[in-house]
Amino acid sequence: MRWLEEGCLELLDQTKLPLKVTYLKCRDYLDVAAAIKRLAVRGAPAIGTAAAYGLTLGAMNLKTRQKEEFLSGVKAIASELSATRPTAVNLRWALDRMIKKLHIDDNEDVNSLRTVLLEEANLIYQEDIETNRKIGKHGQALIPNGSRVLTHCNAGALATAGYGTALGVIRAAREAGKNISVIADETRPLLQGARLTAWEMLREHIPVTLITDNMAGYLMATQKVDLIIVGADRITANGDVANKIGTYSLAVLAKAHNLPFYVAAPLSTIDMSLASGAEIPIEERDHTEITHLDGKSVAPPGVKAWNPAFDVTPNHLVTAIITERGVIYPAYLDNLDKIINH
Amino acid sequence: MRWLEEGCLELLDQTKLPLKVTYLKCRDYLDVAAAIKRLAVRGAPAIGTAAAYGLTLGAMNLKTRQKEEFLSGVKAIASELSATRPTAVNLRWALDRMIKKLHIDDNEDVNSLRTVLLEEANLIYQEDIETNRKIGKHGQALIPNGSRVLTHCNAGALATAGYGTALGVIRAAREAGKNISVIADETRPLLQGARLTAWEMLREHIPVTLITDNMAGYLMATQKVDLIIVGADRITANGDVANKIGTYSLAVLAKAHNLPFYVAAPLSTIDMSLASGAEIPIEERDHTEITHLDGKSVAPPGVKAWNPAFDVTPNHLVTAIITERGVIYPAYLDNLDKIINH
Repeated sequence: MRWLEEGCLELLDQTKLPLKVTYLKCRDYLDVAAAIKRLAVRGAPAIGTAAAYGLTLGAMNLKTRQKEEFLSGVKAIASELSATRPTAVNLRWALDRMIKKLHIDDNEDVNSLRTVLLEEANLIYQEDIETNRKIGKHGQALIPNGSRVLTHCNAGALATAGYGTALGVIRAAREAGKNISVIADETRPLLQGARLTAWEMLREHIPVTLITDNMAGYLMATQKVDLIIVGADRITANGDVANKIGTYSLAVLAKAHNLPFYVAAPLSTIDMSLASGAEIPIEERDHTEITHLDGKSVAPPGVKAWNPAFDVTPNHLVTAIITERGVIYPAYLDNLDKIINH
Repeated sequence: MRWLEEGCLELLDQTKLPLKVTYLKCRDYLDVAAAIKRLAVRGAPAIGTAAAYGLTLGAMNLKTRQKEEFLSGVKAIASELSATRPTAVNLRWALDRMIKKLHIDDNEDVNSLRTVLLEEANLIYQEDIETNRKIGKHGQALIPNGSRVLTHCNAGALATAGYGTALGVIRAAREAGKNISVIADETRPLLQGARLTAWEMLREHIPVTLITDNMAGYLMATQKVDLIIVGADRITANGDVANKIGTYSLAVLAKAHNLPFYVAAPLSTIDMSLASGAEIPIEERDHTEITHLDGKSVAPPGVKAWNPAFDVTPNHLVTAIITERGVIYPAYLDNLDKIINH
């Protein structure tokens, strides 16, 4: 994504990848909200950053010079943006951080507040890239030379402001001179692995092999994978991890095959207000994502489907959580608290 | 499938389901071999039966009255049919059974031998349906009233001469008055669960919910499934089970959630000549089955893929094997031997 000085957020339309590279120009927060909802931009850190710019656009377009009216308008827009997707906490985190920058009782006028918001959005954007590079640096130390790394969905440059979390660790390992190959779960129903992860890896000439999600277990059993790294949409105080549907199955399989299962995520993904994963709202998306492919039915008309977009992996299946402040190991309840409140 | 007296095997083209119900008319063994290869007919018992009719068609078209020439021609056709798919053993079992009916040294002429083959193919067809009804009868006793049964791929009427193995157990439980609902893994890459199992269940008003394969674990963790039943393509002497890719992951997940994992299969699926699943040849199919959907690319051009059509589930993950002679429990090495050689 890219901020254009004219007052526009340019987003790579991820729904069109890998066959078409097309950009959306968002000139109002409603454009950004729509892009988040239909997954033109997705990935927990990316939607946080996009929402920050979306709030900036909304603030720019508010027709008032009255500070209290402006503030209540901005807050209403933040609520609307926040409601676009329920599971990833980075969205709410970014919007809360933006709102906190607005001080109603200081001397700034509405136009200055608009500048404050844009500067904060730019900061969130820049920090996200730096954060991912730090995650990469800490995480790559865990990846032995020659590793065949299985990943799920897309926790790459596309899912963040840049560089990526799980794929950032892989990039950092490659930059450190290690010979790393990637196995990408295609990730049904929306095929982010096939469409996005494979695309990112091919562009950088990182060896990648695509599999269907149901092959991961057999791949582990036949010793074709050395470790698993995924991103996260929300991590609770006890280290439970909400991530793309299918992550939980992978974690169980990793445990059964004694393979390390790593989660790479910025601290903004950690929600200390929730005690455990049972409290995370899991988004259920439209059933046609399963019953239709590219608008064409692949299932008999009228069949019921179940389409949770995420699942929760309990802490005991997570080998370590890789953050920008270092690698966190169990017991997560203590160790997450230490790193957050250090 | 249906044998037409004019000398033609009529096959429901399963690649066109669920949107189109179209029939193929096979008038020679080459038509049948092609239909098996491109999965117009699939499922271990169904391809065994189809191959038996294919051999009959081949024998009918052999232009000879000389018995030895006829016999060597029939054997060559059997080899060709046998080579269409490597993993399911029922194919070879049916062809071997057909060949054994041909006695070169008795008084019958070539035309009588053609009749012998047709009668044997009809017998294989009829026996398969009876076998499935017996599997259903034995298996349904294992299914408590109210069960939510997860199944993978299609082990239904479409995968057999009729009634089905795994879905036969579900049908028998329904016929016994039990309230049973089905959860169907869509089963990537070829979506047999979405296209075939969902279609079979809807036609009989058996409640069915479609999921993507990667949702099965989360479904188990959230207590939405009571047991798993799948079919099999080959079972070795020690009880290892080759079945559609993804079966192994399901079995590991079932174990992790203390859920019963049943395999329903006729004795013709059991290959006592192989000591363990490691010896089963696993068919690898074209990568475009993963990278393309309905002829359209869903992955970046040039990406590598891995496409094993089957995997092997080790015996220790199998709660029981349901056959036409009853339910077999561990230790399989002893108990399969007893039931086969009883």
